[in-house]
Order: sequence, then C-alpha cells, then structure tokens
Amino acid sequence: MADGGEGTLDAILHAIGADATRATMALPVASGTVRDAYYGLLHEVGGEVAVIEVAEIVGLTDAAGVRTDVGARTTIGIGILMRALLDRGVRDFRIGLGGSSTNDGGAGLLQALGVRLADAQGAAVAPTADGLAALAFVDARGLDPRVAESRLAILSDVNNPLCGALGATAVFGPQKGVTPERVERFDATLARFAARAEDAFGRPVATRPGSGAAGGLGFALQLLGGTMASGAEVVADLVALDAALADADWAITGEGRSDAQTLLNKAPFIVAQRARRAGVPVTLLSGAIDAGALPALGAHFAGCFGLPAGPATLDDCVGNAAAWLTDRATAIARLWSAAQRT
Amino acid sequence: MADGGEGTLDAILHAIGADATRATMALPVASGTVRDAYYGLLHEVGGEVAVIEVAEIVGLTDAAGVRTDVGARTTIGIGILMRALLDRGVRDFRIGLGGSSTNDGGAGLLQALGVRLADAQGAAVAPTADGLAALAFVDARGLDPRVAESRLAILSDVNNPLCGALGATAVFGPQKGVTPERVERFDATLARFAARAEDAFGRPVATRPGSGAAGGLGFALQLLGGTMASGAEVVADLVALDAALADADWAITGEGRSDAQTLLNKAPFIVAQRARRAGVPVTLLSGAIDAGALPALGAHFAGCFGLPAGPATLDDCVGNAAAWLTDRATAIARLWSAAQRT
Repeated sequence: MADGGEGTLDAILHAIGADATRATMALPVASGTVRDAYYGLLHEVGGEVAVIEVAEIVGLTDAAGVRTDVGARTTIGIGILMRALLDRGVRDFRIGLGGSSTNDGGAGLLQALGVRLADAQGAAVAPTADGLAALAFVDARGLDPRVAESRLAILSDVNNPLCGALGATAVFGPQKGVTPERVERFDATLARFAARAEDAFGRPVATRPGSGAAGGLGFALQLLGGTMASGAEVVADLVALDAALADADWAITGEGRSDAQTLLNKAPFIVAQRARRAGVPVTLLSGAIDAGALPALGAHFAGCFGLPAGPATLDDCVGNAAAWLTDRATAIARLWSAAQRT
Repeated sequence: MADGGEGTLDAILHAIGADATRATMALPVASGTVRDAYYGLLHEVGGEVAVIEVAEIVGLTDAAGVRTDVGARTTIGIGILMRALLDRGVRDFRIGLGGSSTNDGGAGLLQALGVRLADAQGAAVAPTADGLAALAFVDARGLDPRVAESRLAILSDVNNPLCGALGATAVFGPQKGVTPERVERFDATLARFAARAEDAFGRPVATRPGSGAAGGLGFALQLLGGTMASGAEVVADLVALDAALADADWAITGEGRSDAQTLLNKAPFIVAQRARRAGVPVTLLSGAIDAGALPALGAHFAGCFGLPAGPATLDDCVGNAAAWLTDRATAIARLWSAAQRT
C-alpha cells in the first residue's frame, strides 16, 4: 500500500505486475540539475494510464534535490514528462503528490505545458519560488490542448489551501528548507502568481483543499482541471486491495510513524476501513507508534506495534528497519498462530 | 512470577493471599545503617515457612545500601532476622538471593547466628568485605543449634563459585561498586575467609555452584547446610503456577530484559517450560528483548515483545514502564482475541 507519497509507484507496479511497465526519463529538477526519474504505465483496456510519483522526480530525499536550494527547485520535470506522455497518446494520469521538495506553486508544470510566465518587461521568468518573485503576467493561451482531453487524478492526503497560515509555504515549507525569514515572502509570491494564473485560466482554485499539496503543485493541477482524490483510496483500488482482503484471514499494515494524523485517511487507516468491511482483522506494525494517539488508534486495529524491542535511537530504528520489521512480524505471526490453535 | 531476586516476596505473597503474612523488622544493612525490611510468613499445615528476599534487606536499589560503600555492607541483618524467626519457632526458610548489594561472603549471616570471626589478637572483626581483611580465626562452636534443625532452601539462578575469575567478586562485584583495583583484594579476602570457615564447619563448599550468589551469601548458607534450588522453580511451586496454567488459554510472562541468559532457567523460561507441558501458549513481554537472542528465544515463545513503540532511551523505558506495559499488553491481547475470532 501507499498513499500518493514516496513508494506509491513501487506499490502499484509491484501489485499490478505484468500489466504495468516501469519506465524512466531524464528530467530537470532544478536549474542545471537533471535526474533519471521513474514513472509507471498501466496497460488498461481503455488505454494506457500513467502513474507519476512526484517524490520520484523532485523528492525530499533525492540527493540532487536536497543540494539545490528550495528557491531554485521546480516542477518543470513533471510537465516535461506529462508532455512526453501526451505525445505517446496517454490521456489518463494518476499523479501522487506526497514527499515533494518544491515550493513553486506548480509554475514549472504549467510552463512545461505551454503556459507563459513573464516579468514586467515581457521576459520569461524561471518557474521557481525565487523566479516567480519577478512575475507580472501569466498567459495560458499556449497551453497544450491535449491537457483538456485528459483525466488528471491528483493523489494526495493534504487538504491545505495554496497560501496563508495553512498554506503550502507556512505548513510544509520549513521541512523543505524554507527558512523562517523567507516564509512570508514565498507565500506572497505564490499569492500573486495564483491571482495572475487564476485570471488567465478563469478558474479560482487557490483556496480549494489540496491546492497547497506538493508546494502548490496541487494548485496548478487543479487549474488544469485535475481532481483531488484520496491517495490511499486510489492506490487501494489500483492494487486491488478489496480482492486481496476477500481471501485473507488477517491483514497487516503500517507506515513510518503512526499518530493521530494516521486517522486522517493515511494508508493504514484506509486499509483498516476496507478490512473492517471485509470482516478481516487488521494489525498495525509501524516504525513507531505515538503513545498519545494509542487510545484513538487502538480502536481501529487488532494491536498496534512499533519496531524497537528495547531502548533505541531514531537512527537505530531507521538503520535496522528491515531486520526489526522481520523480527516483529515474526512475533505477531507466532502469537496469531498460537491463538488460532487454542 | 519471580526468580529469587527483587520482587520474589511480592510475587509469592500476592499469589498466596490470605494464607501468608507480610511482616517487617528493623535490620542493619551496614555499620550504623538500619532499615525496615519486609519478609513473609506462609502459614502451611506443617508449620510456618519464612520467605526472605535478600534484595529487600540489602538490595542494590536500596538507597541506604547504595550510599554505603560495598566494603562496609554486610548480611548481618539476614542472620538477625533468621534468629528472630528461629525464636518464633520457624524451621523452614526460603531465601531468595538475587539483587544483593553485599560482598561479605555471608560473614554477617554467620556472625549473627553465633559464629565467631576474630583477628590475630582474638578480637572480633566486622563481618564486611573490609573487615574480613583482618580475619585470622573462625569458630563455629557458638552456632545456633536450631539452624541444624532447619530446612534452608536457597533460591537462586546463579551457578558461580565463591572465588576466582568466575567468582562473586569478579563477576558481580563491579555492579555493586567494587572498583577494579579492589577486585583482586576482595577476592583474596573471601578465599582466606572461606578456607577458615570450611575448616571450622568441616564442609568444603566454596567451589560449589551457587556459592558465589549474593556476594558469597550462597557460600555461607551452603556452609549451614542449605541446598540450592532454582529460584524460578521454587516460586512457580509456591504460587501454584501449574494449577493456574491448567485453567489457562494463554500465558504472558516477562522480565526487565530478555537475552540468551533468559534460557538459563530465568523465570520466563520456567514459565515457558511449564506452559508447554500444560499445552498453553506463552508470550514474552519484557522491558527489552536482545535482538541477537531472538532466534534462540523465539522458539520458546508465541511472540517476543519489548516495551517501546518507537525510539526511546533506557530512562524513557524505565520511567514509562507501567504505562507501556499496559499499552503493549493491550496490543497483544487485541491481536490474540482477533485471531481467536477468525
């Protein structure tokens, strides 16, 4: 399972197997920085469906992305990839927004798809948080017309608007390297960009839930007619989770760290809901469980378990994750099997 | 359950309930230091049985004991308590040796029961690791004759001899505050004391397994005719563990930290063996589980679980032990119950 963030592509491709292709394309992630990024193509009856994981292209944990300052990072690669896929005939896109390192409001995506971003002198501006500071005009007349023929499903569990105290910059900027003194400036830049872009498209979407996802990429995709979808729900459908549960006695799910946010439609919660409908008990096995959230989490799971079996630092937990996951899974499986024999 | 160490008395008294009495007596634990120590009296058909937990009197975690240097600590209080119990008519003693803070070879116990310890001038020496340095003579003629009429069961899971590289001082001294430069001196002192005492009693026991338990208290008790017993086995009998297992679907056991030593007849292993004989699955829930010992431990338990559910320091684990034990017990109980319904 996955929820639209890191690992979404792997989860889908692994579950679909032979009916999917893992492809790669060299894409820019910032001025002068290019990386080979993976994407997926699902061979469905009605045509090919592209699965794009934003974290794969401009991910937080990508070394190239991290080395480049957030002010210079851009979603242009996602637009270039979409254009290449449109050329190939793809008109159905599932785009996972979690784990991005950008704060460009999706300006890169728009520019790659033909939208003109210009300064007061009419010169093109760079589609980055820094570049947008000089933005004066947005012209959408050059937008690739095939976008309008396409279905854009935005996989995300973020409900934040583009700007303001609950916006992309204020809430998610700091973890991407937006220093406190830049938050206000970047936020104002995105607000001005959004106003121009909304005028050009005739579509006010900056305050819609999800516009603040992936540094504002959620805004740009909604501007293009994309619709927000629960990442975990879409992935659950793509991997045919319900069919797997129909044959199951027991489900095990998990994530890096489970807390009260888990119950806001994160992957383990979606698994728990679907398992409950299927009458299958589901156990939570995460890297860590927030003790304060246990009363709330506990009601949804047949046991909540973390990885460590004794005192351990965060580094220990990360470094031993694979081995400890095996240990803990063995422990709950032994307990399960003993209880079934009794 | 317990294994003769800290908590043994509580485990027994709790399990036996109305047929046991919790009593207290002020006892010296070092020169000039007295504390109120608990002991238990089991009212059995053949007479009263005294249960003495050495850790309750001269325990490692006792503040008074810790403040006094190990060189000045003594087991004299245990002898005083035994004498008072002999006066009361008790002739059956179960003495739990784990968790002691002393290194006096049991000299204090012997002195309190009438054995004379003297220096070359014939003056009495203090029954402590420091005092025994001046020891020249041991005279057992004054030993309370009621000791010979008594049954002394020594509850311990320590098999070490009194002296040498595997002896009480070398192996257990450091955790009691025996500094490295004193290890050799204290060990030599105990060896000389043991030779004199063995001559006086006509009983060579210093090299017997268990003589190194509780800083050599195991030696003194064997000198008095005591017999070593597995602490966990004796406690299991006293708390009627087999009867409890006969009615049980599932057993949960645990300890502070489980590792390869656990399989050397520690309490959780005894519970596992008895549960297996009763056909009852048993789950291990300890403060911490040594990952390296999991392959060996895993075979004996229906799941091995530690307390933390995420990154945690040792202090976190100790400070939150009660709450986390509840959390983890809830988790395994929910899993158990889900597996039984499936």
